[in-house]
Amino acid sequence: MSDYNSDIAIARAAKKKPIKEIAARLGMAEEDIVPYGHDKAKVSAPFLKSLESRPDGKLILVTAVNPTPAGEGKTTTTVGLGDGLNRIGKNALICIREASLGPCFGVKGGAAGGGYAQVVPMEEMNLHFTGDFHAITTAHNLLSAMVDNHIYWGNELQIDSRRVVWRRVLDMNDRALRQITASLGGVANGFPRETGFDITVASEVMAILCLSTDLKDLEQRLGDIIVAYRRDKTPITARDLKADGAMAVLLKDAIQPNLVQTLENNPAFVHGGPFANIAHGCNSVVATRAALKLADYVVTEAGFGADLGAEKFFDIKCRKAGLKPAAAVVVATVRAMKMNGGVSKADLSAENVEAVKAGCANLGRHVENVKGFGVPVVVAINHFSADTDAEIQAVKDYVATLGTEAIVCRHWAEGSAGITSLAEKVVELADGGTADFKPIYPDEMGLFEKIETVVKKIYRGSEVTADQSVRDQLSAWEEAGYGNLPVCMAKTQYSFSTDPTKRGAPTDFSVHVREVRLSAGAGFVVAICGQIMTMPGLPSQPAAESIYLNDNGEIEGLF
Amino acid sequence: MSDYNSDIAIARAAKKKPIKEIAARLGMAEEDIVPYGHDKAKVSAPFLKSLESRPDGKLILVTAVNPTPAGEGKTTTTVGLGDGLNRIGKNALICIREASLGPCFGVKGGAAGGGYAQVVPMEEMNLHFTGDFHAITTAHNLLSAMVDNHIYWGNELQIDSRRVVWRRVLDMNDRALRQITASLGGVANGFPRETGFDITVASEVMAILCLSTDLKDLEQRLGDIIVAYRRDKTPITARDLKADGAMAVLLKDAIQPNLVQTLENNPAFVHGGPFANIAHGCNSVVATRAALKLADYVVTEAGFGADLGAEKFFDIKCRKAGLKPAAAVVVATVRAMKMNGGVSKADLSAENVEAVKAGCANLGRHVENVKGFGVPVVVAINHFSADTDAEIQAVKDYVATLGTEAIVCRHWAEGSAGITSLAEKVVELADGGTADFKPIYPDEMGLFEKIETVVKKIYRGSEVTADQSVRDQLSAWEEAGYGNLPVCMAKTQYSFSTDPTKRGAPTDFSVHVREVRLSAGAGFVVAICGQIMTMPGLPSQPAAESIYLNDNGEIEGLF
Repeated sequence: MSDYNSDIAIARAAKKKPIKEIAARLGMAEEDIVPYGHDKAKVSAPFLKSLESRPDGKLILVTAVNPTPAGEGKTTTTVGLGDGLNRIGKNALICIREASLGPCFGVKGGAAGGGYAQVVPMEEMNLHFTGDFHAITTAHNLLSAMVDNHIYWGNELQIDSRRVVWRRVLDMNDRALRQITASLGGVANGFPRETGFDITVASEVMAILCLSTDLKDLEQRLGDIIVAYRRDKTPITARDLKADGAMAVLLKDAIQPNLVQTLENNPAFVHGGPFANIAHGCNSVVATRAALKLADYVVTEAGFGADLGAEKFFDIKCRKAGLKPAAAVVVATVRAMKMNGGVSKADLSAENVEAVKAGCANLGRHVENVKGFGVPVVVAINHFSADTDAEIQAVKDYVATLGTEAIVCRHWAEGSAGITSLAEKVVELADGGTADFKPIYPDEMGLFEKIETVVKKIYRGSEVTADQSVRDQLSAWEEAGYGNLPVCMAKTQYSFSTDPTKRGAPTDFSVHVREVRLSAGAGFVVAICGQIMTMPGLPSQPAAESIYLNDNGEIEGLF
Repeated sequence: MSDYNSDIAIARAAKKKPIKEIAARLGMAEEDIVPYGHDKAKVSAPFLKSLESRPDGKLILVTAVNPTPAGEGKTTTTVGLGDGLNRIGKNALICIREASLGPCFGVKGGAAGGGYAQVVPMEEMNLHFTGDFHAITTAHNLLSAMVDNHIYWGNELQIDSRRVVWRRVLDMNDRALRQITASLGGVANGFPRETGFDITVASEVMAILCLSTDLKDLEQRLGDIIVAYRRDKTPITARDLKADGAMAVLLKDAIQPNLVQTLENNPAFVHGGPFANIAHGCNSVVATRAALKLADYVVTEAGFGADLGAEKFFDIKCRKAGLKPAAAVVVATVRAMKMNGGVSKADLSAENVEAVKAGCANLGRHVENVKGFGVPVVVAINHFSADTDAEIQAVKDYVATLGTEAIVCRHWAEGSAGITSLAEKVVELADGGTADFKPIYPDEMGLFEKIETVVKKIYRGSEVTADQSVRDQLSAWEEAGYGNLPVCMAKTQYSFSTDPTKRGAPTDFSVHVREVRLSAGAGFVVAICGQIMTMPGLPSQPAAESIYLNDNGEIEGLF
């Protein structure tokens, strides 16, 4: 999976079909898509609207154990499963997230899947793609400019310039912009104040775009964004600044799902990419809903492991969009089980069945958790060539004790041919009608209690701690009418706990909520448990230094 | 011309043809273009390359008198002339600049032309269009991030952080970002220093994209950008930071010309949009060159009046790209002549033949200047309904005394039918073979002398003043090998002089060069004569406040 040279070589050798042919398979005429080149397209708004009365297909979530530096291959499995379902004769569509451009210039870019389970065109998807992130950056920064402009021209709304919470964004790893003093240079440039930039994927506008059901809902949510507070702590919204309409105009194309294809020429929607810590980490509701109208099976994924990704997928995205997942796949690797069992990265290549067995506790808890949402589960063992039969058998045996099946998948090496067993099992689960999805907590539960519910039921921590100021803030939001929102947990993805070194299935730990933030437009309350970086920096040898166009005009060094 | 409601209504009523049909007229197959929707496309790189051996068509420059608040309609005339040439049976292509997105949220967006001489799709061209400006923003800011990142990780190149000249850019009117202190917040965020943001059109990357002949030349020029100096004042370039390759990758699509159409379904390239003060203010060399291969007549424009726009078009763009203009049109309006003759904006609607006559001195000097470059000239009187016959006759009579013809054009009201006389005259001039283009100064002239040449020969000023530090800087650049570059004058567009209130044809003024800047990648030395704003602000009632999507999904308030 880590052999990105292979990934790019395979992707370049792909026999892509014109995107209008891919669209035609989904019943879209040429005028139903908005092409971006010959291999990318957006689905047109009128066509999306025409789908409304159709029945929904079945929604399959691909999630994973806690990620390790080895990589579990969640996107690869999502793409592979989509191809596998198509291979066994099903009409299946894939829904994954867009990549952020900025980080590709820090470390090498992330492929969309890997090996023979990829989505193409890979380079474009890691660069400007169809411009969605640029549109989000622009809409976000228009609002930022309008905040300072309002203060500059007399501050009629009485914004407390110390309490402006709306920062600016760039899709760039630029640590120098994390904290700045703006409006320097005298009268003509405004009132100096401290602020800063986040990376675009951390923008609330990104989360809003991904949770909106249509343009009207988008505009409503944009208007709800809280940009600042007055001295009396009453909030000022984007609507108060009359920025919501113009922001929606800037996002009118970005909200339309992007259609691309897999290496096997099956359709995939790649749309939206919110952070998986301070936001919910899933592709857009618009894309998922459209896919459900267009296909019998829709395979999607959620960020990080199931403790963060699946929980938010269920409790935020599915709850708010009225989605009912029919089945879930938990991706595990033998390597990840070993690392969760205490093996260091350097020792991963040696067989170690005992470590695999020990690490399975991590997998087991995720499987149990997903079942707790009322969704039937199958485990996908994403095969690596170094895996031994005994190690694989250990995972299978363990999963069997949970009343669940674990299926070895070789889609990375073999494409859809290597994942038909998983596809068959997923169809069996999804068609079996056993799913009875429900979120883990009800809307009307108190905000702090919601946090406690996630910590205790999902992470299996013993308690939640927080300063009184945090508790007071939550109470204040409840009084202000935000108590019905779900919570969005921001913690390390490497452990059920807030300590990234505690792999496996830790117990008896407490979770400290350091800070809470209200994303009133997106519609959730973020609980920050640990240090969360919202503007990455570049490394000492940025990937950008070795990225260039070769004599054939191909991009070198991006992967 | 100022009735933008009409413009948008006319544009919306346009019967656009699919862009592939427009491309087909130019001999492009479907695979030769890269579609962006059904009404915009980029010309593919392989197709551009295939054109190299073709003969060139004739290049026509549309320039103007000094602009007045009334608006002279230079773009409208450029579009109208293109349509007019097609109407009289010629194969003509239009080349104009792209619009900047940010300012559209300040005051109402600029249409691409006006009345019945417009390029469409108007909304998209004023918003994200094909993403070129976003790509430029990203490439620029990647370099910015790499500068601070280099300092952060040990500063091997010994950048003097007080002498970083490379700022950041956004395509947004945001005065709060004009001057900032970055890298605040402690060790992890770098070394605090003062910097700021310009608007994207002011980026040297924009100028470079527009002056590059191809991707290789682009990468070379990007590498030449000077980002900072050491304590010993030796320069550090983008190449030293190894940023040039990655920047070129980010710009690989942006450098391809954008094809759209006029209201009359004639082809137009809309590509690039550098500032007309600190840069050269013309559309891209790539687009102009491609157009010359694809059409017998190419109509293009340059920013502001002929003193700035045409001079830079000739002395920078044509000189560097080896272009040989065959004819030029100087656009004048009766209103502009009146204002140049001393009439205030409020009194423009009353007939005033004497003022028209007095104002013609401005037109006359521009006509003489353009002829001085060896390019034959015709004057286009862009007709307004309030113009009287006597006023028009006054302009015609005056122009006749220059040995030149002035032709009334009614393309705004009538489309191509209103501009056939001008089209016929332009063909006569261009085909007459009288053009003998040469820049106004040779490459080998000293930098200060080049500035003096422009001031004395074009502006007709009596002298150039500058502090010794400015003269020393120019000498230092000459010694460093930059002496062969052309100069790019940055002064007010409202007067030949540096005093915007001196309309008409002022004499006996001196021009003070306040500051000089080296755009080593773009390949010119900027001479700043007066205050130049490189980051606009929003007004007290930004247009953004009244921009929204109506129930039909159409944009309201943008125009």
